Amino acid sequence: MGPHRRFDPLSGRRILVSPQRNRRPWQGQREPVVNAPRPAYDENCYLCPGNRRANGRINPAYSGTFVFDNDFPALLDASDPVAGDDLLFRADEVRGRCRVLCYAPRHDLGLGDLGRDGIRAVIETWIRECASLGRQYSHVQIFENRGAQMGCSNPHPHGQIWATDSPPELHDVEDTHQRDWFQRRGRALLLEVVEREAALRTRVVAKTNHWLAIVPFWAVWPFELLLLPRFPISRITELRVAEQSDLAEMLERVLACYDGLFDTTFPYSFGWHGAPQDGLARPWWQLHAHFYPPLLRSAGVRKFMVGYELLAESQRDLTPETAAETLRAVISGGIR
Amino acid sequence: MGPHRRFDPLSGRRILVSPQRNRRPWQGQREPVVNAPRPAYDENCYLCPGNRRANGRINPAYSGTFVFDNDFPALLDASDPVAGDDLLFRADEVRGRCRVLCYAPRHDLGLGDLGRDGIRAVIETWIRECASLGRQYSHVQIFENRGAQMGCSNPHPHGQIWATDSPPELHDVEDTHQRDWFQRRGRALLLEVVEREAALRTRVVAKTNHWLAIVPFWAVWPFELLLLPRFPISRITELRVAEQSDLAEMLERVLACYDGLFDTTFPYSFGWHGAPQDGLARPWWQLHAHFYPPLLRSAGVRKFMVGYELLAESQRDLTPETAAETLRAVISGGIR
Ligand SMILES: O=P(O)(O)O[C@H]1O[C@H](CO)[C@@H](O)[C@H](O)[C@H]1O
Ligand SMILES: O=P(O)(O)O[C@H]1O[C@H](CO)[C@@H](O)[C@H](O)[C@H]1O
Repeated sequence: MGPHRRFDPLSGRRILVSPQRNRRPWQGQREPVVNAPRPAYDENCYLCPGNRRANGRINPAYSGTFVFDNDFPALLDASDPVAGDDLLFRADEVRGRCRVLCYAPRHDLGLGDLGRDGIRAVIETWIRECASLGRQYSHVQIFENRGAQMGCSNPHPHGQIWATDSPPELHDVEDTHQRDWFQRRGRALLLEVVEREAALRTRVVAKTNHWLAIVPFWAVWPFELLLLPRFPISRITELRVAEQSDLAEMLERVLACYDGLFDTTFPYSFGWHGAPQDGLARPWWQLHAHFYPPLLRSAGVRKFMVGYELLAESQRDLTPETAAETLRAVISGGIR
Repeated sequence: MGPHRRFDPLSGRRILVSPQRNRRPWQGQREPVVNAPRPAYDENCYLCPGNRRANGRINPAYSGTFVFDNDFPALLDASDPVAGDDLLFRADEVRGRCRVLCYAPRHDLGLGDLGRDGIRAVIETWIRECASLGRQYSHVQIFENRGAQMGCSNPHPHGQIWATDSPPELHDVEDTHQRDWFQRRGRALLLEVVEREAALRTRVVAKTNHWLAIVPFWAVWPFELLLLPRFPISRITELRVAEQSDLAEMLERVLACYDGLFDTTFPYSFGWHGAPQDGLARPWWQLHAHFYPPLLRSAGVRKFMVGYELLAESQRDLTPETAAETLRAVISGGIR
């Protein structure tokens, strides 16, 4: 297959796909890979139970999940824009709150290693945090940066939750595209995706009763995944108990697959997108999670989104179909 | 100053600015910095004159710039989209060509180290390549990835030129925003920017007779720069001789400033944006160059565009005004 361009109906973005490029001899950087086993407790980790954080506060001796306000937050409950109200220099106020979510006391495990109950506890915490932050802030972004390659320097399993009182850019973009689709077709975009992909199967990586994990047709990152509910739902706070349990199973499978792919602690950024927490019915909005992992060929060889990508358009070196096939092989090969 | 959000009228994007965040004690990754002196000629470098490339071809004994077709190009003169013409799975053909541009035979220098004449030779090559590629392809992207942190593994000074027969996403986006502005205001957006910024001076980093370098009000990367002509011009191929010489001076100053900032071979992705090479008059289009450097606090501490940035909106930790002030201090301090 030759080079071509694909379109992402959820974000409106374009992706240049260059499958022939993956056959080249690798001339790029090889990064050192550190897969040393970690201790279950690390006295120098500011996220482990009982330890002191940079601002002097002491973590409780927590046993499940542990959530606290970020000590150095990007968002505050006060905003202070520069004067700049003209057309050219536009600045707006934005108020918000940044939370840190430790998944578990164990320093040495990842989200996928916590067992079904441990993952369920994280899902419940996401729901609880979204509900409580949602009373003050309309937009809640749950995410995790995993691994040093993704700017995460503390391997203690944790994610973040940033809430704002107005939509961040990409929430707005997805809202618009989903709404337009719904108005034109009378159906939710991502429910159509689920139906088509489940029937085609070429890009499906994992399927449970309630969830579907695919490499989307328009994936940007080499092994990007889109995690979709197989039922209509706009917000994580609307998940029923059975759907939560099933989600725990799905996350366990997907994360094991990732770690198994290059036999490493697989780096990624991951996060949930859902309708604003404003209580309004938005039937066009389907809850979903994106996984953006940087690795391309091995634990030490990643895809860089740089010059052409930053200035012109995203570019990928293997087809989403090949990526899905590779990930499925990891699952069925029972690696790990 | 507290957190706020800014708007980029050129791309339509939003940026969360969190100046209070730069005061936190640094807990992030510190990357090893390799600033070892390089030899003027490296027998293992596939870009040095006379050496053999991965596909067996031998580089000529070039003495100025040297341009060749990428041996493993992302674009070909043939395209082959997957079947996928429905609304959900849209794929289009795209034809193009990828060129590699060695700035000079010397392995140990960067673009900024070549002297005025050496930089002039690179500018002339950009113009020549744009003109000749433009006869077949409407969109030409000149860019450079510098440094291993930006996915460049060969330190031999070189850039790339990718040409396509249809607009990559961001070319379209900038075209639309500039055209809309022009229609509403009767003036080119980036000429208004030049005028306002030159008068304000807070975000100006360097100024020559014909060029202005600013940290834009809506900068995403910590020390991002926007390089603007101070006269109307849509395409690099339209540059006059005096404007080219002056550009060489500007590039020399800007690149020395970058290298001096953290006393390192400063990594960045850099590239030109101009009107399509279709011969049409597009008075709304102003030629310009973006510099996207990742470093934040030192040669080993960079800003990661990850979780929140990939899922919600860009976020920066120091104001563009502070960044400009810092860069100006490097220039006036005469560092380097
Ligand atoms: O062509 P190169 O230098 O091997 O590759 C580099 O630049 C390209 C264009 O920005 C990117 O697609 C690659 O990810 C990057 O590693
Ligand atoms: O908050 P942290 O983990 O220190 O920081 C990390 O995630 C943030 C949110 O994606 C980014 O803005 C930072 O660049 C990254 O290093």
